[in-house]
Formats: sequence, structure tokens, C-alpha cells
Amino acid sequence: MLRKFIFLHFSTAFSPKVHTISSPLIRINKFQSQMGSSSGSSPKLLFRQLFEKESSTYSYLLADASHPDKPALLVDPVDKTVDRDLSLVKELGLKLLYAINTHVHADHVTGTGLIKSKAPGVKSIISKASNAKADLFVEPGDKICLGDLFLEVRATPGHTLGCVTYVTGDGHNQPQPRMAFTGDALLIRGCGRTDFQGGSSEQLYKSVHSQIFTLPKDTLVYPAHDYKGFSVSTVGEEMLYNPRLTKDEETFKNIMANLNLSYPKMINVAVPANMVCGLQDVESKAG
Amino acid sequence: MLRKFIFLHFSTAFSPKVHTISSPLIRINKFQSQMGSSSGSSPKLLFRQLFEKESSTYSYLLADASHPDKPALLVDPVDKTVDRDLSLVKELGLKLLYAINTHVHADHVTGTGLIKSKAPGVKSIISKASNAKADLFVEPGDKICLGDLFLEVRATPGHTLGCVTYVTGDGHNQPQPRMAFTGDALLIRGCGRTDFQGGSSEQLYKSVHSQIFTLPKDTLVYPAHDYKGFSVSTVGEEMLYNPRLTKDEETFKNIMANLNLSYPKMINVAVPANMVCGLQDVESKAG
Repeated sequence: MLRKFIFLHFSTAFSPKVHTISSPLIRINKFQSQMGSSSGSSPKLLFRQLFEKESSTYSYLLADASHPDKPALLVDPVDKTVDRDLSLVKELGLKLLYAINTHVHADHVTGTGLIKSKAPGVKSIISKASNAKADLFVEPGDKICLGDLFLEVRATPGHTLGCVTYVTGDGHNQPQPRMAFTGDALLIRGCGRTDFQGGSSEQLYKSVHSQIFTLPKDTLVYPAHDYKGFSVSTVGEEMLYNPRLTKDEETFKNIMANLNLSYPKMINVAVPANMVCGLQDVESKAG
Repeated sequence: MLRKFIFLHFSTAFSPKVHTISSPLIRINKFQSQMGSSSGSSPKLLFRQLFEKESSTYSYLLADASHPDKPALLVDPVDKTVDRDLSLVKELGLKLLYAINTHVHADHVTGTGLIKSKAPGVKSIISKASNAKADLFVEPGDKICLGDLFLEVRATPGHTLGCVTYVTGDGHNQPQPRMAFTGDALLIRGCGRTDFQGGSSEQLYKSVHSQIFTLPKDTLVYPAHDYKGFSVSTVGEEMLYNPRLTKDEETFKNIMANLNLSYPKMINVAVPANMVCGLQDVESKAG
């Protein structure tokens, strides 16, 4: 596997700390580099789940609260709630580094572009497989560092070709239980549709079983949407009770082929916007 | 202060374990009594936040997952989501003991009555000061035991006369940080209105400042509603950023006197139903 080290060049002095991590690494930790060292204490996750009611979308705010600079990232921000999210980031005294997307959404416009216009310096992240535009691209096995915390990138295509799941780190000083931000690959007692954007029910079945159901059973599942008011599940729960993904692969494919869902009302606006990470008309929106 | 020991009489053998708790105690722990002892290990909180979209109401499911019988309770269940909640309770293998309300809601019908009809044995709990009907009544200082976990009852009137805040226990084997289920007394960056149901802005100001803002600053604030998509706050955050309760008392009273809110559309249905803990027409609804 290709070892990948991406060093971002910030305007301040850059003296990266050498990590001894054997897996490929995206080294995008501005704070460690600016300060020459980490905080020295165990990282303490600050975590907020945020809801956008119209599209029933969950965004997630994560920060290393024990790091002096409280570096933070937002998972799947929505354009309509950017002001709320940035206000919260400010009140909590966080330094927002990244706006990361699990995939190119078809049901809402990502907040990434607006965030970048309102909080200069924030970098957008999406999977390379999405073929979307962003500041940074991740591939399976990459790690996104946030202070002394990190997220692993797992490829979970099937809802779209470029879907990834971000999973909090596996390590004694990382949050326990682990947390998986599954996007639309795995929803609580459901999953994303597979009938457009390069979707494939066969691929989704394999993705969930090989990349998510192999995580510890107490891993918390945080999806990009919920339509029934659930906020979280666990890998163990979905392995037992997901009405689709507990079935064998053929049954699953039949279920997905016969959902008879209507065409997403937002898709013609959302996908073109999200392919450029919400930068399609930022100037008019940010005004 | 009156010491209060309420022993519930279940059909099974009852041999209550003696607690050495100096504060008044509602001893309603069916499981300890049935088994003669607690689980012997530190309690592990299973926690779920649940949302009802129409009224933007949060309900909360709490259980002692380390106890062999996984005793559970629901805070502020909603009638419309009772089937969802009971299904989750069943899937998680929990034994639902209590449906507890922070107050007599004016904006939705409590799920308590329906829960009692669908899950016989569940006891409803509300404050004595609410003057509502229920199986058990709590007063300030009471503790509601749930396996080896417990909730403290704090009187926080002002939105209604009988509002209480339930706070997870203060102890080395209780969840850290603590969690406060504030009902409508304290909302995230807001608070409940004070213009009906025995509401009083003066009382609400005193309640929040004396009963909630005196908790540790990292105490998690879980309200009964949120209208902006926030899921949780902390005492420290609200002490800094609550736009109403950070003001002095006179300014707060002026703000509350000039909200010019419309009459709650559900109040004429909800309040009579909630005064009897949702038992007004359970037979027709449960059919």
C-alpha cells in the first residue's frame, strides 16, 4: 500500500513532529506542527451532534478539548445551519480546522463552501473516490489528526461510489467506545439508497459487512440522517436489528431493488453544489 | 426535612437493601429488592436521546446496562413516539421501570399513559408540586434509583409551578460528567415561557440560578426541547452564553414579560391529558 504523507504548508513556521504510525497518514495537524509538540496530556473529546430538521441531517462537531488550541472539525455540515455551527465553534473556544464530508450528498447542500468563506483557513476534505473538489482528499487507511485525536478513513461505497466512514482512533488514549460516522452507508435500522450516483447494493452490502460490522460491537454509529428521531446506534445493535443488512446478500439486493423511492427533490441542486464542496455560489450566500 | 422512604410492593419477594443515604430517598428499585443485592459492579449508563420532530421534544432513555436486568426509565416520553421507544427498549434488552416527567407539558401529550397500557408494570412519576396524577410523586431531594444509578430531584419551578430537573447522581460510581434533564426550565441558549400554568419569571430565574447553575460547570444540560438542532449544552456554557439567564433578574423579567408569544396550539389538549399523565383516553389510543 502506498504510504502517503501530505504536509500542508501554513504561513507560520512548520516543524512537523514525526509520528511512528505504520499506516498511511495524512498529516494535517496544524497545531502539532505550529507548536512543535502535542498537548502532552490524554486527548479529551468534545463532541456535539447537530440536527438540520428540513433534510433530517446530522452534522457532528469534534474537538480535542484538552489541547491548548482546541482543534476542531465538522462532519457533514449543512449550508442552512452554518451560522449556528460557527457560532457554537466560537462560543466553545474551538479552532475549526476541517469541514469533512462522508460523501457527495444528494439531499442537501454541504455547508463546507460557506464555512470556508466565513472562516478562512478551514480546509475541506472528501474522499478521492468521490471525484469531487476539495482542499484535501482522503483514501482508505488515511488518518485525519485533530490534536491528539484521530479519525480513520474507511471506504464504504455503495450509496455513492465515493462514500467513506470516519472512525475514531483505535488506541488507549482515543475515545472509548469508538465512534463511526457512517454517512448514508449505514443508517439506524436502515441504509442509504443505492439507485443513483454510482450506487450499488452489492457494493454497499460488502462495505457495511467488511468495514463497519467488523468494528467492536460497542462502536457508536452516528449516521448522516435519521428520520425517526433516533440519535445513535451501535454496531452490535445494527448487526442484530438492521432490517436490511441482517439479511443475506441476495435478499438485501432484492430489498434495495424494490424500494420504489421517488427521485430526491434536492438532487439537481445538491449534487452539482456538493461536487465542488459547496463552493458553487458562496459569494452570493455569504453576503 | 422530612425523611421519606417509599417502598413499593411488588408481587415477588421483597427484601430491600439498606442504603446509607442521608437525604430523603424514594426507594423504588425493584431489581435490588428482587435480587437481594445490586449487580456488584460499577453501573454503566446506557443513554439514548430521542427526538419527536413535530413538537421538537427530546425524550431520554437511561438504563443501568451493567445490572443483570438492565433497569431503565424514560424521561418525558411523547405519545406519538411510544411505539418507537418501546421497540428500542425491547431490542436493547432493557426492563422499563419508570416513565418520568419533568412537568405537565403544554405542547405535546406525554407518552406515559400509552406506555403504561402497553407495558404494564411501568410506573409514572411526576413532581408532587405539579398536582398531576401519577403512580409516584417526587419532591426536591428525592432520589430515583435505577439499578446502581440514581437521579436526584431538584425543584425548578417558573415555567410551571411543578417543574423539576432530574440530575444524575453525585458519586464516584455515577456517570461523569453529571447530566441534568432540565425540562423547560433551562433550554439551550433559552428557557421555557413563564406566562401560564403557574409560571413566574422571578421564580424561574431563582430556580435556574440556585438549582442548575450551582452544578459543576461540565454538567451536561439535556432539555425537553430544542428548536435549532442543538442536542446538548453544559452548565458552564449556559452560564456564559444563555441570552436570557446571563442577564440580571430585572432584565430577565422584562425579557420574559415582552416575548409576545402566541397561545400554545396544543395546550387545551395537552394540559388536561398530562394532568393525568396521559391516561385520559388510553384505551382508544392503545387499540
